Amino acid sequence: MDWELVGYAAAALTMFGFLPQLVKMVKTKSVDDVSLFMMVQMGLGVSLWLVYGLHLKNSPLIVANLVSLLILALGITVYFRYTTRRYFI
Amino acid sequence: MDWELVGYAAAALTMFGFLPQLVKMVKTKSVDDVSLFMMVQMGLGVSLWLVYGLHLKNSPLIVANLVSLLILALGITVYFRYTTRRYFI
Repeated sequence: MDWELVGYAAAALTMFGFLPQLVKMVKTKSVDDVSLFMMVQMGLGVSLWLVYGLHLKNSPLIVANLVSLLILALGITVYFRYTTRRYFI
Repeated sequence: MDWELVGYAAAALTMFGFLPQLVKMVKTKSVDDVSLFMMVQMGLGVSLWLVYGLHLKNSPLIVANLVSLLILALGITVYFRYTTRRYFI
């Protein structure tokens, strides 16, 4: 079994993991059930992974978390564009 | 700067990253804007990370992805409990 392939498949699935949520928000223009806190916490987390990756000069860590951060940032932008809530929980 | 601490903080934030979404779904009982595809893709991704971690005998990889998988599995369960959709996109 090619274990490197398992790692790459895992990385591909998780780095683009938030993409279906972003697509759904854009398509439906309905975002109120989505947790802003989740996107912010994940965004903070992958930002720290990115900083850690830059420190280690580890390309896979840098690339994967840069992609995730970009998708999450777009998600937060789309959330504020379409939310009907005044208080953000 | 303690770089190990940055790594641990990153890991803590991302391994519990989906928790706010789970809490929100349970509290509001409203889940239709949440992407099932996102939860399934993430679940598949962290499962592969878990398998990869077991192969490498890497404890942090195992623990972090086991926690994420558990939260995502609960999320998918709660989604099916409260969704009003008949077709799952």
